[in-house]
Amino acid sequence: GAPLGPGLKRKNIPQPSNALKSFNWAKLAENKLEGTVWMEVDDVKVFKILDLEDIEKTFSAYQRQQDFFTVNNNKQKEAEEDSLSSKKVKELSVIDGRRAQNCNILLSRLKLSNEEMKRAILTMDEQEDLPRDMLEQLLKFVPEKSDVDLLEEHRHELDRMAKADRFLYEMSRIGHYQQRLQSLYFKKKFAERITEIKPKVEALAKASKEVLQSRNLKQLLEVVLAFGNYMNKGQRGNAYGFKVSSLNKIADTKSSIDKNITLLHYLITILEQKYSKVLLFQDDLQNVPEAAKVNMTELEKEIGSLRSGLRNVESELEFQQKRAQEPGDKFVSVVSQFITVASFSFSDVEDSLQEAKDLFLKALRHFGEEPGKMQPDEFFGIFDQFLQSFAEAKLDNENMRRRKEEEERRARMEAQLKEQREKERKARKARENGEEDGEFDD
Amino acid sequence: GAPLGPGLKRKNIPQPSNALKSFNWAKLAENKLEGTVWMEVDDVKVFKILDLEDIEKTFSAYQRQQDFFTVNNNKQKEAEEDSLSSKKVKELSVIDGRRAQNCNILLSRLKLSNEEMKRAILTMDEQEDLPRDMLEQLLKFVPEKSDVDLLEEHRHELDRMAKADRFLYEMSRIGHYQQRLQSLYFKKKFAERITEIKPKVEALAKASKEVLQSRNLKQLLEVVLAFGNYMNKGQRGNAYGFKVSSLNKIADTKSSIDKNITLLHYLITILEQKYSKVLLFQDDLQNVPEAAKVNMTELEKEIGSLRSGLRNVESELEFQQKRAQEPGDKFVSVVSQFITVASFSFSDVEDSLQEAKDLFLKALRHFGEEPGKMQPDEFFGIFDQFLQSFAEAKLDNENMRRRKEEEERRARMEAQLKEQREKERKARKARENGEEDGEFDD
Repeated sequence: GAPLGPGLKRKNIPQPSNALKSFNWAKLAENKLEGTVWMEVDDVKVFKILDLEDIEKTFSAYQRQQDFFTVNNNKQKEAEEDSLSSKKVKELSVIDGRRAQNCNILLSRLKLSNEEMKRAILTMDEQEDLPRDMLEQLLKFVPEKSDVDLLEEHRHELDRMAKADRFLYEMSRIGHYQQRLQSLYFKKKFAERITEIKPKVEALAKASKEVLQSRNLKQLLEVVLAFGNYMNKGQRGNAYGFKVSSLNKIADTKSSIDKNITLLHYLITILEQKYSKVLLFQDDLQNVPEAAKVNMTELEKEIGSLRSGLRNVESELEFQQKRAQEPGDKFVSVVSQFITVASFSFSDVEDSLQEAKDLFLKALRHFGEEPGKMQPDEFFGIFDQFLQSFAEAKLDNENMRRRKEEEERRARMEAQLKEQREKERKARKARENGEEDGEFDD
Repeated sequence: GAPLGPGLKRKNIPQPSNALKSFNWAKLAENKLEGTVWMEVDDVKVFKILDLEDIEKTFSAYQRQQDFFTVNNNKQKEAEEDSLSSKKVKELSVIDGRRAQNCNILLSRLKLSNEEMKRAILTMDEQEDLPRDMLEQLLKFVPEKSDVDLLEEHRHELDRMAKADRFLYEMSRIGHYQQRLQSLYFKKKFAERITEIKPKVEALAKASKEVLQSRNLKQLLEVVLAFGNYMNKGQRGNAYGFKVSSLNKIADTKSSIDKNITLLHYLITILEQKYSKVLLFQDDLQNVPEAAKVNMTELEKEIGSLRSGLRNVESELEFQQKRAQEPGDKFVSVVSQFITVASFSFSDVEDSLQEAKDLFLKALRHFGEEPGKMQPDEFFGIFDQFLQSFAEAKLDNENMRRRKEEEERRARMEAQLKEQREKERKARKARENGEEDGEFDD
């Protein structure tokens, strides 16, 4: 055992005659005990009072094999157990109840024997037996140091071990099982993760170029600047430029003639009449909506995680290259090939991101925003919101125009109808007069 | 105007003949223009193309008075307007549509004239006319510098101003209107905020004392330590103490006889039999559930906010003390009295918090937790969760016991019934025999 701290006496703990289930506590390190309640506590006194035999019986590591699927099916289970109990061998189960149960569920879904599982790990899943979500689950059931210690003690009872215990024991005997599992999982997820990152980086670069290069956007800003300078007085007027966020304030100013018409509706009418090409700025900024969804912090975190993941796989490769390889162990060949391709693909993404960030910085400066104070989602979000309000206001205008035209057409038709009726009335009158005074006419 | 930056020429902006509604943009500072799109933009060209007269007509600051309540009632409104338009005076409205509308709604709920409002502010709401939620709203409608500039330009048209415009104008003429409003709001909320903080601080102090002093808790830990040391082998065993979080792992260990019985159920049975006083630890830790809800970050933020709020009110008091006071201005007398009482009450809370934090630190050390690594909500949350699981498991035990007793009673009754039937059967048989062989008996 470890050397005892000052004032700690070695304890005389009674030993159960058979292995017991474990209580998964977190021991307090012996150098942390000073000044704590634990200096005033003496569990040895308690052993004299406890019925140790009863504890041993109730929490034995050996138990009858129980199928966890029938736990809810109590009545039936009890009946089955009664009839089967004589046939069943007592099973050794040292792993925690819930953990063992979840591990069992996973193993039954996996449908591989321990031997097949071992081969799949060693060959880096040559035969594609291990789907990604299974690997993710398996990573939760990597045997812990304390499990391994417990299982090692019972390795002479291998045949009596419960399914989950046996699985954990067998896996613990594969050298660097956890690292192999992690490398395999990383390899399987790599392409998908790169595929998710790329369009985000591209949208960022393209949208930056778009706001930098769109002449229509520039012309639009010029017109809005003129409007603001004409309308605003004093401190608020006489501007040489405005923050892009002001674009989304245009619709806040309402006409004094009709409350339903905002400055944005009006601006669009003017653009249609006098700057019709400017309306194409919507087409110029095609990548803006996508770029408005890019969260740079998350993007950089994901790239950082890919970088460190790659490094971990590389250092595991170095480790595996140095040691003698078991027959059937394909880690080195598979992983060295993967690393070559993945590193290339990763630095490609890194370069694109750097390029996109440079372009984004240019875009910020182009609109007088302080670099570092605005993230892509906020910056492009402003343009995205403006694009949406612009499209909606344009539609409003069209609807208003159509309604107005319809009203005018109706008015015209009503006028025609009235004229027609008038004509008919006159004609009738004329006929009536003709009938009466026919003799004078013709 | 401000001096122009390098390369900026003074612009010749056409002036509308009447005031227009404003476009609430954020001007870009002139020293931020270099290298931006705005150096390539010339709004003066645009003025030659725009129909300025039409803009002036559409966005005039003067508009017919419209009741915002009838905006949705279009048909009716139009009719009314047609009949009223000749009588109505054109109104001056320079404040943004939505802002003016919300301000109007507030003013109509407030039901005070501008004069009454002014008096309420100056007397620090002696007559309790301003409810707290109204003050909160009023703080959103403090006239901004640009509003004040615009309104000042039109002060000769005071009578034509729209309700909201006029309100903002009148308030802007009260010296330090915003600071007075803020001081008043702070004063009105102060007692409630202190009342919300105090029970949290108290719960923290009391719960810390409880876990430090409860002998029953200590005895419980001793028993749990004995269980763990008896059950765990190797690395995991032979402990002198465990982290408090381990208390919530007790229920993870399940009996090998009955899966529905956990180590916690078993522990409780043992406590009931051999350490019955320990069960009272639940009563010892009465303040733990409340302390488990205390978020220290939020608590300290709130106390920091109170501190800086008090400081702001104090410095406003200093400012007001130095200047000549208008008749009816009661700021100095009301606020100096408030500050005296509030400062006392605040330092009281600060002292209690310091005391509670010291006790909490002691509690952390008492259980071997590193100070600073655990916040009260986490630490007491552990005990709180344990208290709950303990109570639930205790109830489980009682239910199981009751069910068992019932089953036993039923079994006993069935046994009695069976015995009874057996007796009757024998009696009947005896009778039958007696009838047949009566002559031999008696």
